[in-house]
This record gives sequence, C-alpha cells and structure tokens, in this order.
Amino acid sequence: MAGNTFGQVFRVTTWGESHGPALGAVIDGCPPRLPLSAADLEEELARRRPGVQAHTTPRREPDQAEILSGVFEGLTTGTPISLVIYNRDVRSKDYDALREVFRPGHGDFTYQAKYGIRDHRGGGRASARETAARVAAGAVAQKVLDLEKIRVLAYTLELGGIRAQNLDESIIWDNPFFCPDPAAAQAMNQRVKEVKARGDSLGGLVEVRVKGCPPGLGEPVFDKLDGALAQAVMSVGAVKGVEIGAGFAAARMLGSENNDPLLPGGGFASNNAGGILAGISNGDEIVVRAAVKPIPSIAIEQQTIDVSGQPRTLSIKGRHDISAIPRIVPVIAAMVRLTLADFLLRQRTIK
Amino acid sequence: MAGNTFGQVFRVTTWGESHGPALGAVIDGCPPRLPLSAADLEEELARRRPGVQAHTTPRREPDQAEILSGVFEGLTTGTPISLVIYNRDVRSKDYDALREVFRPGHGDFTYQAKYGIRDHRGGGRASARETAARVAAGAVAQKVLDLEKIRVLAYTLELGGIRAQNLDESIIWDNPFFCPDPAAAQAMNQRVKEVKARGDSLGGLVEVRVKGCPPGLGEPVFDKLDGALAQAVMSVGAVKGVEIGAGFAAARMLGSENNDPLLPGGGFASNNAGGILAGISNGDEIVVRAAVKPIPSIAIEQQTIDVSGQPRTLSIKGRHDISAIPRIVPVIAAMVRLTLADFLLRQRTIK
Amino acid sequence: MAGNTFGQVFRVTTWGESHGPALGAVIDGCPPRLPLSAADLEEELARRRPGVQAHTTPRREPDQAEILSGVFEGLTTGTPISLVIYNRDVRSKDYDALREVFRPGHGDFTYQAKYGIRDHRGGGRASARETAARVAAGAVAQKVLDLEKIRVLAYTLELGGIRAQNLDESIIWDNPFFCPDPAAAQAMNQRVKEVKARGDSLGGLVEVRVKGCPPGLGEPVFDKLDGALAQAVMSVGAVKGVEIGAGFAAARMLGSENNDPLLPGGGFASNNAGGILAGISNGDEIVVRAAVKPIPSIAIEQQTIDVSGQPRTLSIKGRHDISAIPRIVPVIAAMVRLTLADFLLRQRTIK
Amino acid sequence: MAGNTFGQVFRVTTWGESHGPALGAVIDGCPPRLPLSAADLEEELARRRPGVQAHTTPRREPDQAEILSGVFEGLTTGTPISLVIYNRDVRSKDYDALREVFRPGHGDFTYQAKYGIRDHRGGGRASARETAARVAAGAVAQKVLDLEKIRVLAYTLELGGIRAQNLDESIIWDNPFFCPDPAAAQAMNQRVKEVKARGDSLGGLVEVRVKGCPPGLGEPVFDKLDGALAQAVMSVGAVKGVEIGAGFAAARMLGSENNDPLLPGGGFASNNAGGILAGISNGDEIVVRAAVKPIPSIAIEQQTIDVSGQPRTLSIKGRHDISAIPRIVPVIAAMVRLTLADFLLRQRTIK
Repeated sequence: MAGNTFGQVFRVTTWGESHGPALGAVIDGCPPRLPLSAADLEEELARRRPGVQAHTTPRREPDQAEILSGVFEGLTTGTPISLVIYNRDVRSKDYDALREVFRPGHGDFTYQAKYGIRDHRGGGRASARETAARVAAGAVAQKVLDLEKIRVLAYTLELGGIRAQNLDESIIWDNPFFCPDPAAAQAMNQRVKEVKARGDSLGGLVEVRVKGCPPGLGEPVFDKLDGALAQAVMSVGAVKGVEIGAGFAAARMLGSENNDPLLPGGGFASNNAGGILAGISNGDEIVVRAAVKPIPSIAIEQQTIDVSGQPRTLSIKGRHDISAIPRIVPVIAAMVRLTLADFLLRQRTIK
Repeated sequence: MAGNTFGQVFRVTTWGESHGPALGAVIDGCPPRLPLSAADLEEELARRRPGVQAHTTPRREPDQAEILSGVFEGLTTGTPISLVIYNRDVRSKDYDALREVFRPGHGDFTYQAKYGIRDHRGGGRASARETAARVAAGAVAQKVLDLEKIRVLAYTLELGGIRAQNLDESIIWDNPFFCPDPAAAQAMNQRVKEVKARGDSLGGLVEVRVKGCPPGLGEPVFDKLDGALAQAVMSVGAVKGVEIGAGFAAARMLGSENNDPLLPGGGFASNNAGGILAGISNGDEIVVRAAVKPIPSIAIEQQTIDVSGQPRTLSIKGRHDISAIPRIVPVIAAMVRLTLADFLLRQRTIK
Repeated sequence: MAGNTFGQVFRVTTWGESHGPALGAVIDGCPPRLPLSAADLEEELARRRPGVQAHTTPRREPDQAEILSGVFEGLTTGTPISLVIYNRDVRSKDYDALREVFRPGHGDFTYQAKYGIRDHRGGGRASARETAARVAAGAVAQKVLDLEKIRVLAYTLELGGIRAQNLDESIIWDNPFFCPDPAAAQAMNQRVKEVKARGDSLGGLVEVRVKGCPPGLGEPVFDKLDGALAQAVMSVGAVKGVEIGAGFAAARMLGSENNDPLLPGGGFASNNAGGILAGISNGDEIVVRAAVKPIPSIAIEQQTIDVSGQPRTLSIKGRHDISAIPRIVPVIAAMVRLTLADFLLRQRTIK
Repeated sequence: MAGNTFGQVFRVTTWGESHGPALGAVIDGCPPRLPLSAADLEEELARRRPGVQAHTTPRREPDQAEILSGVFEGLTTGTPISLVIYNRDVRSKDYDALREVFRPGHGDFTYQAKYGIRDHRGGGRASARETAARVAAGAVAQKVLDLEKIRVLAYTLELGGIRAQNLDESIIWDNPFFCPDPAAAQAMNQRVKEVKARGDSLGGLVEVRVKGCPPGLGEPVFDKLDGALAQAVMSVGAVKGVEIGAGFAAARMLGSENNDPLLPGGGFASNNAGGILAGISNGDEIVVRAAVKPIPSIAIEQQTIDVSGQPRTLSIKGRHDISAIPRIVPVIAAMVRLTLADFLLRQRTIK
C-alpha cells in the first residue's frame, strides 16, 4: 500500500529509482507567496552530493533539481511543487552481478519478498539516492520555517566511535565530516582511512538541534512531535535508533535529575526533555539524535544466498561510501524540516 | 489538527480524559468474522491496571472495557468497533492544587501553550490513563495477528539501571516488574524501595520481540516498518528513545560485524537488523527497545512556575507510580500490535 | 478498509448499529475554546427524531447525545469530543423475519456480499439511525461555522413530485415537511396520505443554502469544495444525485446564460455557479440539491430472494417512514456543516 | 491545504500548470507485476487531445506521457509510478490580456481569493489541461481493473439539448462527439455549428457504465462507492451535477417502482440503483451521469471586473473549445477508473 507520502498539511511524495531516468518529489500543501527558486535547493543538495566530501563515492551526480510547477514569477502559488532530478552518469552494468544475489544488510531480499519483483540496479528505490528528493523537498520546507525564523542545525556527533566533544557551529561545513569539533574531525579522518584500507565500513551518530521553534507544535496523542520526528528520522535508510533530549540516558536518571524546572523568566533550567513535553514543543531547543549503522556494502567477503536460495560469497567493490555519514546529515536535517513545516501548518488550524 | 488516530487500514481513534466520564477507542477497518468479546480485552488491561503490581499507584480502576458496536453474535462485522471504559474512583479534588501550576516534566505547560486551555485534572488527555484505550485496542489488533500466528512479547529489560541478563519468557507475568530474569526482578524490587523512600522516581528500558512475523511488511520509503514502530512506541508518554535490533550499538560496529549473513536454509546468521531491512520485515524476530524516562511526579520539592509566570515550589504527593515501568509494558506491546495489524492488512493490497 | 471517518482537519468518526447498545461519533480536530454543551446538540437531533413529524415512524428514540470527552467547564479543549447516543426502545425481535431475506432496495445483499456477515437487526450499520451521530457531530461543526457567522439552511424542495414554489425561511420548522412553502406543504400532506394508504413510499428533493461563506474555501484539484459536498451528501443513505447551483439544468444552458458576471461592487449578477467556481467558494450563496429516493421498505408485496438464493415474497409492515424526507433534511444539513467546518480549518493552513 | 491527491490505496497525486514546463502524476500504491508501458497511456490521452475531434481547440498538444519510475523491464514494481507530460506549443503571450481581469465562469477570481496569487496563463492549475495527468493515471488504474476484467465505458449522452436515444457501443469512438447514437451525433454537429457561429458555448451530459464490477466494493458509511464516485466526477472542472442509476428521476418515483427486485438466478430485475446499494456495489452495471456546464470562455462580450474591482468588458477569442464535451469524456472515465481501482484494492484488506 502507498507509503511514499510524508506529512498531513505540508505533504511530500517522492518517487524514483537509482538507475531510472529521474527521481523527484511533489510537494502539496506549501503555502502560497513564499519566494522559491531552483537555487534555493542547491545548498543542501550539494552537501548530500557524493564526491564532494573526502572518502565518499566518486559517482558524479550533478543532482540539480528543477522546479516543474507550483512557482510563478519566483513565488509559490499554493499549487503542487514538482521537483525533478535527472539521473546521469548511470552505470547500470556495474550491477549485473547483483541481479541474482541478495546483499547482506541491504533491502534486496525484503523487496523481493514484498513485491515479488525488484529493480536490482543500484538498489532501485531502496538506494540512498532516493534521499536526494527528500533533501530538495526539505529546502522547500525550510521556506515555511523561515516564516517563524526556525533554524535546523544538523551535524556528525560521532563516527566510528569518535565523538565530538565541542560544538562549534561555525565549522560544521568546513570539514569533510560535517563535524562541529575540529579535533574529532581529524581523528575521524584517521579512523576512516584505517577501516577503508580493510574494506570495511563505519557507523555513527547524527545530532539535530532546532532553534527558535515556538511552543505548541505537536498533536497528541499519536501524532506527538517526538513520535513524528522518530518516524521521520527512522525512515532514512541506515538509521537504527532515534532519541530525543536525554534519550536513552534518561532511562538511568532519577526523576529529580531528569525533570527540567520551569523558570520564572520563561524557559527551563535544563533540557533533558529535548524541547518536547507530552508530545508538544515547549519552546526550548529541540534535540534529536540518530544512530546510523555502518554501510552494508563492504569489500570484505561475505556469506549470502542467491535468489534461488543457493549459498554465495560476495565482495562488493565499486563506487561506495565507507559510511552513510556525513552524506546522511543533510538528509536527516531535511526530514526534521519536513516534520516541523508540517506541524507548524497543522498548528494553524487550532489557533 | 487531528492527531488521535493511528493506522491506515486498521485505524484506531482514541478519546477521553483522566477525570472525564469515560475514555475509549473506535477501531475502523478491522476485518470481519474475527471472534471478539469483552473478555478478550481483559488480560492486557489487567496488566496495565494500577494496584495490581507492587509499588504501583493504589487508585482502583476496574478498567473494564465494553464493546458498544461492530460485533454481532461474537464475531466482528467489519463495521467500527467502539470500546468504552468508564472512569470510576475519580477524585478530581486531589488536583485542585495543580490547576494554577505547571508541573515539571509534565505536559501542563505545553498543553496550555498549544490550546490556550487544559483540563488540569489528573493530566487530562495527557494522563497515562489514556493508554488504557490503546491497550484495549491492541487486544483487538492481536486478533488480526492471530490470523498469521504472530506473537508479541514485551517485558522490562532494565529498571533503575538494573538489567535483565536472562530472558525466561515463562516468568514474565509472574513477577511485579514483568521482568524475564528473576534475579534482576529481585534487585529491581530493592532499588525501587530505596528510591521510593527518597520520594524520587526511576526510568528503564522495555524490550519487545515479535515472533512469527512474515517477511514483506513495511511500506517504503516513509512508512517503513521501523519508522512506523518508532512513531508508535515514541507516542507513548514517557518514551524518549527507540531502537531496532542492534540500535545505538550499531553506530559503533563495523559493517562486517553488523551485516546479518543470509543462510542457505532460509533466515539469517545473526539479527542485528532486528528483523527489518530497508524498512521491510525480513522474517526474523522483530526487536524493538524503548527508553522510558522516570515518572516526573515526585515527592521531592521542585522549582517551577504557575500560570501567571510566578515562581512556585511543588512536591507531588498522592497516588503516583514510582516508574512508568512495568505498567507501560502492555501499552508498548499494544502499540506494536496496532502497527503490525495495520501493516499486515496494508500488505494484502499488493498481493 | 476503514471508511467511517469524514474530514481532514475537522475529522468525524461515527460508529454504531441500529440495534446495538449505542451509537456515536468521535470528533478530532475541533478547535479549542468553543462553547459546547449537550444542549447544543439537541435542536438538530430533535428534527431528525422519528415520531416528531407527521407520518414518520412511531419508534420513540429520545436520541439524547451525551458528551464523554473533549469539553472542560463548557469549552472545547482541542482534544477528541466523544458523543454517544444510547439505543433504547430496541425491538430486535421485529427483525427476526428479515434475518434470512434480502430486502430490495436495502443494503442487506451488499453488506453480506462485502463482509460475509451482517447484523440484520434494523439494518445494522446501514440503518438510517446511524445518521443521528452525524447530526450530533454536525451541531459541533456549526460551532466552528459560528466563528465566521456561516449559516446552513436546509429544507424540503420537493416531495412526491410536489415542489415548493416559494422560499419562506421562517416557516420551515413550523410544518411537518420542513417545507418553506405552506401551500406545497399542504399538498405534500395530501400526497403522503394517498401513497401511505397504498403501502407505497415517496422520494423528493432537499435543498441546502449556505449563507455567509467567505470566498476561498475548497482545495483544488481533487478536494474541490463541490466535490467534497457531493461526496458528503451522497454518503447519506437514500441520496442518488447531487447538484450544485444550476446543476443538471446547466447542461442545457448556453455559456452566455450560465456565466455569472462579476459586479464592480463585489459579488455576481447571478448564481448559476451555486457559489463555487473551479472548486473554490466565491463568496456567493452555496446552493446544493440532493435527490432522495423513495424509502425501500414498503408494505406492498415484493419479489426477492433469501440468503440461499431461493425466491421469496416480502411485505414490510412495522414502524417505517413513508419517505426519508423530512428526517433526512437535518442529516444533509449536518453533512454540509461537517464539510464546511473542515474546509474552513483547512484554509487556515495557507493564510 | 493539500488537495491534489486522490485515493487511499491506489493514490494519485497530480501537479502542473497549463503554461509551466510540464504536468504529471505520481501513482503510489499500484500493485507490482502489472504490465505497463508508455504506449498503454496513449489511447485515452489521444481521446482527450485537442484538435483531434471536430470543433475542438486547435492547440497542438502531443500530450505524450513518459514513465519516469516504478516500472522495470515492462512490469510495475510496486514503487511510485511517475508520469510526466511536457508542455509544448505554449503561447503564454496570448494570455497577457487576462492577467488583470477575472473571466466570468472561470476560477480566476476564486484562485486569487484563496491564494492571493495566481498563474493567470491559460488558467494555470485550473486549466482543463490539468486533466491530461488524470487521464494518464486512469490508464494505469485500468491495469488494476483488468485483473478483474472490469470495463469502463463512457460517452456523450447529451450535447446542447440533443440526447442520444440509442446506445451502440461500437460507434462511440467513430464520431467526433463520442456519442453512441449516430443520428444524435449528426444533430449535435448541426447544433455546435450554429452556436459556434454566435460565439456561444454548450453543455451536456456524460454517461459512464461500468461492466463486470464485482459486488462488495464501497466502504460505509462516509466512503460509500457512490459518494466516492460523486466526488471523483464532480472534481472534474465543468461538472455541476452527478447522479447514480435513476438519479434525480428517483426523486419522483414510488418505492414500488424504484426498488430493484432480486432474482433467484442472481442479479436484479431492474437497475434503478445504478449498481450500488447502501454504498456498496451490487454486481450490476454501475451507471453514473454527469452534468457538464457550457464552456465559460465565449466570444460574446461579457461584463466583468478587473483585479482592482473596476468594471471591464471581455470577449474571449483564441483557441477554445465550444464545449467541454467530448474531450471531458475520457477524463470522467479516468476518474471512475481511479475510484474503482482504489476500492478494489481497499476491498482486499477485509477479505
């Protein structure tokens, strides 16, 4: 059943396979009269683009999104905004060997089990390339957030066990790991080199901080803001865990430690809640962390089976990242933006 | 905007406040001809009921759900199933003191910020009592899962830092902590006593294992099964984090460690994926863990503010649990059941 | 699949069978801080109630709706509003004879074909009694419309071929046919007597006029306001046709006759559009007409079959109306109210 | 708020303006393994294409739909199917005169009122051109209907007051009016010539017959099949009325005339119900009629206002049809196909 649409008011539907002619997104429900041009989509797409950062896949994807509808003379019109990114530099032949084999850690087996058919080329719809459409749509969502001056900051908190100790926002985009701590970034670089040499791959943590979110966003009881953020972030391919504020650490805290006292001047004395109480934003910084598993495509030989159930060994060479980080950073940011834009517009209905 | 409905095909809408006349759920989309009676709802409701387990709130809630529609001569008819649980033993006066004050860690402030009005009595809609309707609905969802012999097992993995080391399914319901490890249960008992004496509260971890789930459930790309489970579980009041399979640990694993090799005879050599690959069930056991924060209502004096922004101190006495665990265990199980029943029926549309 | 919910922002889910314990509605998405009490639901429910008007079924249904949630100290809170109407005076034995037979013109056969099971008592979910929940919900919707001073006027335009020639709004509720023309009402009375004596039944037309609707409501392209109204009205049991403004007559007009010129002072020189242009309200009066088929339950003997396909003859005695009119008038009004309340709130998201 | 998606399981989202770079549709929820190619979309698109029939607009639109995703080696994969139709032969300059004026009978005024901005060129999103995407999507929906051998037949029943008296299915596509009665088609031709000479326009009736629909489709109570069809058909630009089976005529029938007796061998003795009882298909032919208003763009001079409220006169020359009929015929057929495909898949969830 249909599962490619996200949001209730600000609704995004994505489409497209890794090795088809194109991929894209249709945004329905974007308010009218917001300034929007293709250039607005470029910055975040560039951050997601392979080949830009160190150690990421050398496939060249210009990834330029075109706007096919919904914008008139530089302003949104309230009608659906159709974004398209054409696939270029597609080397489908590279994937012929994978037609008959199920790669461990990939969706090959489950897509086949679900649909009885799959486009094996580059992972088809399950490819990380699908997320380019999310990033483009997220840039449109940011235009809605701009109305309230809401800012979404995402970065690499940890990679291969190396954790950022400082958060210097200004340097995030200046290093190839989108890491806010220059010392950690340097250590990450070393770690990546080692693991790459062994043909293995790495996971890590991405953290998102939302600044300027007004209180009141979130729809109890099922569509709580944290629940929606959890789905949004978990819907990104490699993510295996999501936490809000203190998150899993809260499970070991006492109530007296975990509660955030309200302050007379407004705001809270601490932010273990991560900006969300009872599913509704409380006006404090929203903090979300995502656990990113290591990329399953590794050069090390693995045991698996083919489509007829026979044992096979597999060593994946070719153009692959060693980690979903840092390219996943703008994707997770996009999902947070899409969620917040939707909830901001949803909140308008009860005012 | 509306946020009290969960699911696409198997849809549950809950309603009701802690101190109103009743609360309930309407289930729309339940397949016809399933056996169902009020007695079927009783077992899980009993597990959620306060006063049954040690150390939980002494408020007496018979919590008997009545079925008002959708069942004819013991079978579901395909029409909406309306479940109602009347509120009894409601002592709203106990809450008069909280009318003007925002409790830290609760939704008092955010409900007020969102709606400009709130039913302060017992937390109103934000009360844990709301989850009784989820549990009743979850029992109906299990009837759908029974068609495929899918079993959902939930238990306390950790409480106050004490973690179960063994998983003996048979003893879960025999101890007041719903813990599968008797030694851990005993240690938890000790820990709870200490913290209770200090007027503080505890958090912990709940683990869910789904047995017998067929491969193919989950709707890429946004409605991935893990994304839906994350939302479902995070929508339960005290949950601050959700992980699938290896979860946050996967962030520190190598690809060669984390990948689960496919076996010639079917199945996988390991289950770091937690039964879900690319958002679709792979036929292996589905493993979900939830981080539960400590109950915010504590007897220890806290700093906060009242509705006019003036500083106040607050010490919450009265009938309160010291931890959402174990009563939250059947609630989380219910959310997993609701999710799976929905995805099982969604999958029928593409076969 | 679930089909008992109406609306996107102002969402109503109804439940209940004619001869079950109760029926009701849950409204999710109603804005907070609107005044609401059970008394507000009473006026429209009284108009739908059988036994009040001449010639309608003598079953006594007090039909008093209770509010179980979502209202605190006389104001809506933004949480779900649960309405319940208990079934009383239920004489299910009267229906034993219909257990095995499919009544012509009723849903007996199609419910059986769809679900493989049906509650035959009084039509079960297909009973006109289901509409009581819609009427109660419609009264809540009117509270939203009150914010913009929108008024929904519904009445009998035609019954048994007799058409109202004048529209005197003030007398609608003063005659048993809810007809705005006293002479027509008198002729309808005569017509009904004749047909009733023959054991037959009558159809007619209901007209709805919405006054004070602002321009801008309606969501192109599929959720046009006229499309939504058509679905809303056609979802009422006996309705077989819906038209907007000039409606079917427009099919025989010239463009020069049908176009409504825009006036310099605002508004239009005519209203063939029925207040809706390109699916969006234009600020003029919205005019909707519904074709209501004659009640299928007639005393005249009919040919039909039983559940095993054998021929049967059937003559339906008992407590039945001779026409869905006038009791259907408040039901259709309710559906229009629900539609407009939803679109009014939807429009808030783009402002 | 978002309104450009149709359907629950088989979901179609359309996008695009008349004079933008392209328009298209994304279909989510199409079952996998159905044969599909661009050629499958061509037949119905050709029928909708201007310039093919007599008297229709001479704008040349090749209207060739391309498939950008969701199909692999000639089969659907279960992932979203993206269809795009590029706009060519766009003469936007023709519309400069209309930038400041509201055309009577068009959505110019209401789009402006709703969004505060509009793409005036060719009607923008309100253009009949938008329906090309519906027709393409409808051809995909037919692939789902093919699984059950359901056939949708649509034709012109009446144009300019001239009504088809015979229904010869075989000649429908052989005359420029898509009329099943050759004598009526000839009279229509004459009528069109006269009215065209006067610079005026015509309306009419379109009838749809669905053959082979199994009983059981339709979701009580709000998502009745007839309600859904009413919305679907009314969502097409020029439609002002919809009726099912006997429709408005049923309002003047007696119950004994209108009821369709069930026959021992299966089926019904008559079909006043139009194949739908209590909102569920009964296995008989589904009959839907739509009232189509005359095209509002006429050469005759009309009174209107401009965007600043000043009076203006307007005479619309240029490339315009004299009636939405017959080009609207495949559009209405497409909406019926989309509705049925969705309900067919929805019914799978309860079996």
